[in-house]
Amino acid sequence: VDLAALQARLRTFAEDRNWVQFHSPKNLVMALAGEAGELLELFQWLTEEQSRQIAHSNPDMQRVREELADVLIYVLRLADTLGVDLESALHDKIALNERKYPIEVSRGNAIKYSRR
Amino acid sequence: VDLAALQARLRTFAEDRNWVQFHSPKNLVMALAGEAGELLELFQWLTEEQSRQIAHSNPDMQRVREELADVLIYVLRLADTLGVDLESALHDKIALNERKYPIEVSRGNAIKYSRR
Amino acid sequence: VDLAALQARLRTFAEDRNWVQFHSPKNLVMALAGEAGELLELFQWLTEEQSRQIAHSNPDMQRVREELADVLIYVLRLADTLGVDLESALHDKIALNERKYPIEVSRGNAIKYSRR
Amino acid sequence: VDLAALQARLRTFAEDRNWVQFHSPKNLVMALAGEAGELLELFQWLTEEQSRQIAHSNPDMQRVREELADVLIYVLRLADTLGVDLESALHDKIALNERKYPIEVSRGNAIKYSRR
Repeated sequence: VDLAALQARLRTFAEDRNWVQFHSPKNLVMALAGEAGELLELFQWLTEEQSRQIAHSNPDMQRVREELADVLIYVLRLADTLGVDLESALHDKIALNERKYPIEVSRGNAIKYSRR
Repeated sequence: VDLAALQARLRTFAEDRNWVQFHSPKNLVMALAGEAGELLELFQWLTEEQSRQIAHSNPDMQRVREELADVLIYVLRLADTLGVDLESALHDKIALNERKYPIEVSRGNAIKYSRR
Repeated sequence: VDLAALQARLRTFAEDRNWVQFHSPKNLVMALAGEAGELLELFQWLTEEQSRQIAHSNPDMQRVREELADVLIYVLRLADTLGVDLESALHDKIALNERKYPIEVSRGNAIKYSRR
Repeated sequence: VDLAALQARLRTFAEDRNWVQFHSPKNLVMALAGEAGELLELFQWLTEEQSRQIAHSNPDMQRVREELADVLIYVLRLADTLGVDLESALHDKIALNERKYPIEVSRGNAIKYSRR
């Protein structure tokens, strides 16, 4: 996937419709979080086990797939608007996590998970 | 960017630490929305204009960049866990939006924005 | 509890600090959702059973109690700013739900929960 | 408003429909955050000024009022399930904020708002 190409396509989409004026970082963050809220609503009453089984339900997965795309669209728009290079941000964050949670220490306990 | 390669790296990261057990779709959705909440907190008291200017502030952008990476990490993990092909989901959603909001109609008004 | 008295106290708190200028409904909604995100982070890696047991853990409950208070504070501020009478809004919504989910139909299935 | 009476009414509502089984704290937190997401969607494309004017629009306010009620319903259910006394939690949090943000220091600047 070429994230830059996807961002260019989404930017053109907004420009063609004169919608860039609405896409301030503040507004895009709200839209991103609103779409994350729609994902929550799809999973809120499921048990964890049911949430794993949802992959086998076509109608449910269709909605999950759409909401995931919506979240990703706003992630891409926000990064584009702010000039964030997502790929390098991702690599830096993963490298940070690797230092923060060494395998030997993290394996076998779940301290990150037992208390935030 | 090779999203599949990033997903493989994140999957290995979780497997190495025995964390896959915690990464049910339900839990990953909560984590994604929690990270979106951290983005909200960075922007909630800014005016829209200040949110545009944030790109010029190094310390602020460092935090925004990290939170954006966190959101994207959980998007990738969630898609991987559920077997969603993000690239095709994205293309389908953009194509849907192109049909839903034709340029001629959408341009010059902002009906999508005036009322959801 | 006198919600109106609590709202007056929160309003005075904001006025005394010259913070009313930041409390636009848009910003308050973001702050409310940001605090909801902090609640998510406290529960995201817990099983449902662990989430029930959290009531017996003093340090965890102290944080949950604080985040719940933060959410409620922004609910009260938002309602106050917009002139919403929360008590009547609540009564109307419960009455609506009673009509929407009759006991005889809702009991024994969980249609509301099986699919949103 | 008698919050305890409202909580009792909501508890009976859930019991009558055999829905208490779904109301684990983890699930209620997701539902609360999902409703906060719906509030975000109502405000995400509005300017701050438009968000202040929304109070004068009957159809918009009807939706805001309903979503605010939904958030409050889940705050009440969550507190009830966990045994949190909301009124005392609120008083403690406001008292904490009064110590944390003294009027003399907080007035005239907006340090809380300029950087979180």
